[in-house]
Amino acid sequence: MSKNVTLVEVGLRDGLQNESAQVSSADRVEMAKMLVHAGVRRLELGAFVRPDWVPQMAGSQEVIAGVFASRTKDKKMARVQYSALVPNERGMTEAIQSGIKEIAIFAATSESFSKKNINCSIEESFKRFEPVVALAKKNKIKIRGYLSTCFGCPYEGKVSEAKVVKLAQILIRMGCFEVSIGDTIGVATPGQVESLFKKLKKVIPVKKLAGHFHDTRGTALVNILAAYQLGVRVFDASLGGLGGCPYAPGSAGNVATEDVVYLFDGMGVKTGLKLDELIKANKWTAARMLKALPSKVGKVGELKTLGKVN
Amino acid sequence: MSKNVTLVEVGLRDGLQNESAQVSSADRVEMAKMLVHAGVRRLELGAFVRPDWVPQMAGSQEVIAGVFASRTKDKKMARVQYSALVPNERGMTEAIQSGIKEIAIFAATSESFSKKNINCSIEESFKRFEPVVALAKKNKIKIRGYLSTCFGCPYEGKVSEAKVVKLAQILIRMGCFEVSIGDTIGVATPGQVESLFKKLKKVIPVKKLAGHFHDTRGTALVNILAAYQLGVRVFDASLGGLGGCPYAPGSAGNVATEDVVYLFDGMGVKTGLKLDELIKANKWTAARMLKALPSKVGKVGELKTLGKVN
Repeated sequence: MSKNVTLVEVGLRDGLQNESAQVSSADRVEMAKMLVHAGVRRLELGAFVRPDWVPQMAGSQEVIAGVFASRTKDKKMARVQYSALVPNERGMTEAIQSGIKEIAIFAATSESFSKKNINCSIEESFKRFEPVVALAKKNKIKIRGYLSTCFGCPYEGKVSEAKVVKLAQILIRMGCFEVSIGDTIGVATPGQVESLFKKLKKVIPVKKLAGHFHDTRGTALVNILAAYQLGVRVFDASLGGLGGCPYAPGSAGNVATEDVVYLFDGMGVKTGLKLDELIKANKWTAARMLKALPSKVGKVGELKTLGKVN
Repeated sequence: MSKNVTLVEVGLRDGLQNESAQVSSADRVEMAKMLVHAGVRRLELGAFVRPDWVPQMAGSQEVIAGVFASRTKDKKMARVQYSALVPNERGMTEAIQSGIKEIAIFAATSESFSKKNINCSIEESFKRFEPVVALAKKNKIKIRGYLSTCFGCPYEGKVSEAKVVKLAQILIRMGCFEVSIGDTIGVATPGQVESLFKKLKKVIPVKKLAGHFHDTRGTALVNILAAYQLGVRVFDASLGGLGGCPYAPGSAGNVATEDVVYLFDGMGVKTGLKLDELIKANKWTAARMLKALPSKVGKVGELKTLGKVN
């Protein structure tokens, strides 16, 4: 097994969708370009959701079109695996029209979170996926599965590990090439991560598992390391820590891409990403959003020496 | 070896000394009481430094007097191991007068940091410690050693592991009961922590080593965990993450006590500290400093459920 990791950049989707500021489609295309030039090889570009429900994702079709147009002149842009979130059949039709070759579907592990977040029971959500998955397969579009609140639910508290494992298996059986195990509200600690991933690995090959950690309580990096030590090699991260936590306003959400890259750089684990380019993209985005992004490494960068003191 | 850890609370010294807001002696006594009632058993109360150089530490004598006065009526206050930082013989005289039974001395591992921070070479700093140590021993006062910039220096960059080990050994030989290994500017990653502590453990019993990590680049918790896995059981932490980083204004400094407690609570490792009480102390302090403290757990607390959705 390679010791290196792949980061799935979710800032343009999971990040921006939870920010109050709306970023224009043109600016999102620019962000995508900066991210790709920083080394991103897997990039979520948007979501085919109702713009009246999630205005931040309005124009996802334009973002994808803008990014795809750049591929003819830019080799780096051409080799990236792009994806978009699709909640239902209507969204899937739009996804097909956009030409995207990977979609993501999103399931919850607690009934309350499912009802509150996607307005249906877990069972109903899986029913909704059926036509989406059928259309994806017909159009040779890869499917990624997100499983949320795997370590705790803001409504129900504890989530059963057996339930997480069962739902992850269903997603794989439906045809997902990968399931992203989410700590949606950032409550996990390393022992929990170890316990759940050990159970998941018994029934799903570890290369089909990704870790999606939020830094709400500062534990995202310890959790990533715990999953890494069990063989997980794909992690979701968001430029600058874009996203925040909708259940605790003002708090951190998605782990920041820069922070994950700094950690792995220091450990000699390759991510393929360049920290200085990520920090440039962070500053560019922060200027457009009129706020500093939460990433700690984004604020200070690597160790730069001030010169010896005489 | 016990799996449980001891946290040395440094918010009142290393924390406040790096904050621009000055907190009154009376408020610092209140903070000390809240920290002790949250379970703190080792607590740094202040520093005997020149008040014109470090105005935030002015009144340390009053803080100690206020805390000591409370010991007659309050058993919890009586059982705590209190300490104060002492830079030189003059400070040591004041420390003796205060009645404190533990002092801390502070050495750098890079010449430039030593010159900039304590205005003398490393060799000169150890010379300065001699009368301090002699007076401490004579007065049966325990001595703790801080070793700073052990993982990187803001002026010189890389710091030699051999030098850190050598200086830590000198501190132990001088009579320090414990040496706190500091990542003063928060640049370390777990591989580095592992490498350095392995070398330290070869020449110093691990129970005489403490970890002092800053969260400037978000890696404090991963580094604490790396040191923990090597047997380190004492960690410095600062309420709310008080402190900041003087070399990168606006950035995080000392790791937040709440974040460390949340991590260890989740792992079933006892710290003796109560998270809810720490969060109360955080809010109380934040109100006096007119700013939110950086601790992530301090902002959101533990998982509290909002109730099931029908």
